[in-house]
Formats: sequence, structure tokens, C-alpha cells
Amino acid sequence: MTKTRVAVIGYGNIGKYAVEAVLSASDMELAGVVRRDGAANNPLPNVTFIDEKAHINTLGEVDVALLCKPTRQIKEYATRYLSQGIHTVDSFDIHGDILDLRENLHQIAEKSQATAIIAAGWDPGIDSVVRTLLESAAPVGITYTNFGPGMSMGHSVVARSKDGVKDAMSLTIPMGTGVHRRMVYVQLEYGADLETVTRAIKSDDYFKNDELHVIPVADVSALADMGHGVNMVRKARSGFTDNQIFTFDMRINNPALTAQIMVSCARACTKQKPGAYTMIEIPPVYFLDGNLEENIKRLV
Amino acid sequence: MTKTRVAVIGYGNIGKYAVEAVLSASDMELAGVVRRDGAANNPLPNVTFIDEKAHINTLGEVDVALLCKPTRQIKEYATRYLSQGIHTVDSFDIHGDILDLRENLHQIAEKSQATAIIAAGWDPGIDSVVRTLLESAAPVGITYTNFGPGMSMGHSVVARSKDGVKDAMSLTIPMGTGVHRRMVYVQLEYGADLETVTRAIKSDDYFKNDELHVIPVADVSALADMGHGVNMVRKARSGFTDNQIFTFDMRINNPALTAQIMVSCARACTKQKPGAYTMIEIPPVYFLDGNLEENIKRLV
Repeated sequence: MTKTRVAVIGYGNIGKYAVEAVLSASDMELAGVVRRDGAANNPLPNVTFIDEKAHINTLGEVDVALLCKPTRQIKEYATRYLSQGIHTVDSFDIHGDILDLRENLHQIAEKSQATAIIAAGWDPGIDSVVRTLLESAAPVGITYTNFGPGMSMGHSVVARSKDGVKDAMSLTIPMGTGVHRRMVYVQLEYGADLETVTRAIKSDDYFKNDELHVIPVADVSALADMGHGVNMVRKARSGFTDNQIFTFDMRINNPALTAQIMVSCARACTKQKPGAYTMIEIPPVYFLDGNLEENIKRLV
Repeated sequence: MTKTRVAVIGYGNIGKYAVEAVLSASDMELAGVVRRDGAANNPLPNVTFIDEKAHINTLGEVDVALLCKPTRQIKEYATRYLSQGIHTVDSFDIHGDILDLRENLHQIAEKSQATAIIAAGWDPGIDSVVRTLLESAAPVGITYTNFGPGMSMGHSVVARSKDGVKDAMSLTIPMGTGVHRRMVYVQLEYGADLETVTRAIKSDDYFKNDELHVIPVADVSALADMGHGVNMVRKARSGFTDNQIFTFDMRINNPALTAQIMVSCARACTKQKPGAYTMIEIPPVYFLDGNLEENIKRLV
């Protein structure tokens, strides 16, 4: 069997773990990594790094591009690679904008006969699939998704982008029934005003609905543990029967999990017909390596 | 929108809950119930009951037949309805024989342009989907599925089928790491020998791999609580990162859940192309009522 050739776009937190997940997939080959600073200070001697300005075909044939870029740059990168007929996977995480991204990329993907799997991570991502499943199992009721305790990469990036912030880490604390507290630890730039920074963070869409505490610290990097968690609870009704109770819980390394799910979705791209999809639109067995019948035998 | 017309085949434990689940689905219409004793002693005045010997078109147009029959009769009933171009859903539960059933029904289904969703329940069923998802999220590791405490309908039917058994209930007790004890409570027929009955149960495929205790009681019906549970645990590796920990837990009414999942799969039958499928081969959003885009917006 020919191996799927995968390029990792971006070499931040998720990009680093994406390289590891591709290297550990026996049905894939790492074509290389595309990043802003190209081959400078190549951190992995056996991996080809190229600059973003170089054409991706410098890496040879590429079947799938894993877009390990901040959410707000996903549309641009996805458009670029899909137009070249390369499948893309991203972990776009602004829940309210997923449908727009999907519609937008769907047309481009169909035109180039490529497949995009969007919002592929743990939430949005496998949590979305579990929410869908639980609703099909017990349609009337409420699902609460409780996150943390753990660092939110998306929220940390946003906090870090504010004027006066040198470094920041946003910790998500679950308060039950889907309510969260955000603990944002900031390393301020010299002369920056904590109150101004707090206001800037508080007014961002990422933070405006939650209880927020902004705490100045001397060194954010000393706090940055990558462990995270989810505790999803649904109490609901199947037919006329109440009190069906479901819990889904995970304690995980956040970027490692996101990257692995993206790699599993890269595999699904090669099986799904052209277009842009969220994970709840994909047959779950497409995410797995190996023979379909053997996977059914083992897992069903 | 035209409603999907669903017939419930069989009116035992699952059949009764299936009627309720169809009645509570706003996109479905209950065509009626097909059972051995037909319309005799009609238990639900607003529901049409017909005898198995009558043609199913006595119920008018039927889009999907829910096969609420013992596992060992599923192939026969599925073949009958699929051949007439009617989609079928079953909760066939002998894990080792699922692939055979799928291959068998696939040809019949394709020929009649109908869709069969097989092994649709909680295990096999949504548990299979969760196992698939967790493996895609962390490919290297072990998933343990622990059942109970609760009554296994499949095992109870088998225990009940043995000579000398008037009634029986098999309780599944989770012992951790996927190991289970079977507590079988039997009401013996007059003169039946407990040891002979125990041997007959022990030698059945359903029981032969587990610790078994057969306990004679005066009245099985006094013990028959329908609550059940699953606790699935996976500790595994994403890429090069170990110790990713996942738990899926449910405490549910067993036949109500099975019936509801079958009804959600009936919906998926109308969206999936002809053939026979297990739940891990179906896009999860197909299980839900409502508009695709709205479901994505709400759940992803």
C-alpha cells in the first residue's frame, strides 16, 4: 500500500506533536514541515523543513496538509492548499464560526477535488462526536461539557496577543454545568498597566462570557503544564424513559491529543469524497489505520 | 417534510420501548407493530398490530422495519424485509458473528436498494463508536469495556432457552479490566436438576468465557430491574505521548436505550446509501433529527 504523504504546516505547540503523530503512523510518511523560519536551526535532522515562501511541492508529493496554525489564520492556509488539490485538516476552534468556515472551504475543496476536515481536535472534535452520539441515544435532555483544569491554547494565544503582555497562560477551571472560570496568568511588559490589559482580555470574544481573573506573574513558563481534561455529562430521556445518565471524561496532554486527532482525520480525508466536513459528518472507522473488516471485527 | 414510516417487528422488551421511541420522534410515524399473536389483546388502542403471517403492506407504506427479535432470528427477518426494499435496523449482539451478518445482508440490501444498520444498540452500538473514537485519539493502548451491574437481555434469553428452565435472569457484574462475572438466577421447572441446567448454560457460547454462578430462586420476575451500566476505560498513547486517559460511563435503562438507538439508526438508514453497515461506518450526525447545518452549529 502506498503511504499517505503528510506535511505539517506550522511548528508551534501542535505542529511539534503533529510531527510525532505522523512519524508514529505506519500508513503515513512525513513529507516535511513548512514554517516561517524555514530550515534555520533545523531541530530534527531527519525531517525536511522548508520556508512558507517556498512552494510546498519542494517537499515532493503531498497528500494532506495539517494546518497547525492559529485559528484566525486557518481560512487563508486552508484555501491555499485546497486550491492546489491538497487535503487539509485544521483544529479551528471558534465554535460560532465553524459553519461559515465549512461553507467557505466546501466550494474550494469540491472545485479542486480535495477534502477538508475542519475543527478536528478534542473540542470541537471528538467531544462533538460524543455529544452527537449521546443525543442520538437519549434525545431529550441537557449535555454539559466541563473543561479543565488545564491550559487553553486558544485562550492563551489571545491573551498573549494583547498590548502590554509579554507572555500569558489561560487556565480553564470547571465550575460544573458547563460554567467555567478563566485564570489568566500574565507576564507584563515593562510599564504595562494590569488594569488596561485585563480590560483588553475581558473584552475579547474568547473571554467575554466567563468569570475572569488576570494574575500578574514573573515567569509564565514555570506554570505551563500541558495536561487538560473534559468531563461531559448528559442526563436525558430515551423514548419515554427518563434518567439515562452518561459521562465522558478525559485527562490528556492537550497538544498531543489535538495533533493525534488531526493525523487520524488526515487518514479520513483520503477516504471521504471531496468537500469540507466536521468530524460528526465522517464515518468514525475512517479515522483508523488498517483493514475495514478487521476494524469492525475488533471494535464493534 | 414527509415523515419516515417505521414498523416495529416483535413486541417483547425492546419492541415495547421501540414503539415509545418512534412515537416520540417528530420526524417519524409508527406504521404499526408486527407480532406473533397479531391484533389479539391489542395493548395500545391507537397502534395497529398485525400478525407476522400478514403481509407487512397491510400497514401501508413502511420505510424502515425495526427488528426487535432475538439475535438468532435477525438474519431471517432482515432478509425478508430487505428483499422487499424496506430498510432494517437490528440489535444483533453476538460480536463474533457481526461481520458475517453484514456481508450476508449487504448483498441483499444492495440488490433491493435498501439499507440495513446492524448491531445497533449500546454494545455493540454506541460503545463500538466510542471505542473507535478513542482509538483514533490515542492509537496505542488498551480499551477495557466493563458492563454492569445489570441484566443482560441476550444472556437471559439464552439461559431461559435451556431445558428445565422456566424463567431466568442473567446479571452481569463488572470485575474490572473487562472481566465479568455472570450471576444467573433461574426458576426451575418441576423436577429439573440444577446441575444439568448449570452445565447447559455454562457450555453455551454466551457464557463459556466468564465466571458463572447459577442460583435457583422462586420468582425471577421479582428481581428484574432494567437498569444497566457501562464503564469503558482507555489508557493509551497519542503520537509519542503516553498516559492519555479516557472514561466513558453510562447508567441506563437497557431496553429503552437499545430501542432509542435503533430508532436513531432508522433515521440514518434513510440517508445512507444502500448496503449493510455497522454504526462505526455511519456519519454520527445522520442519527439525529433536524437540519444538518443547525446540528453542526449546536453540537460541533
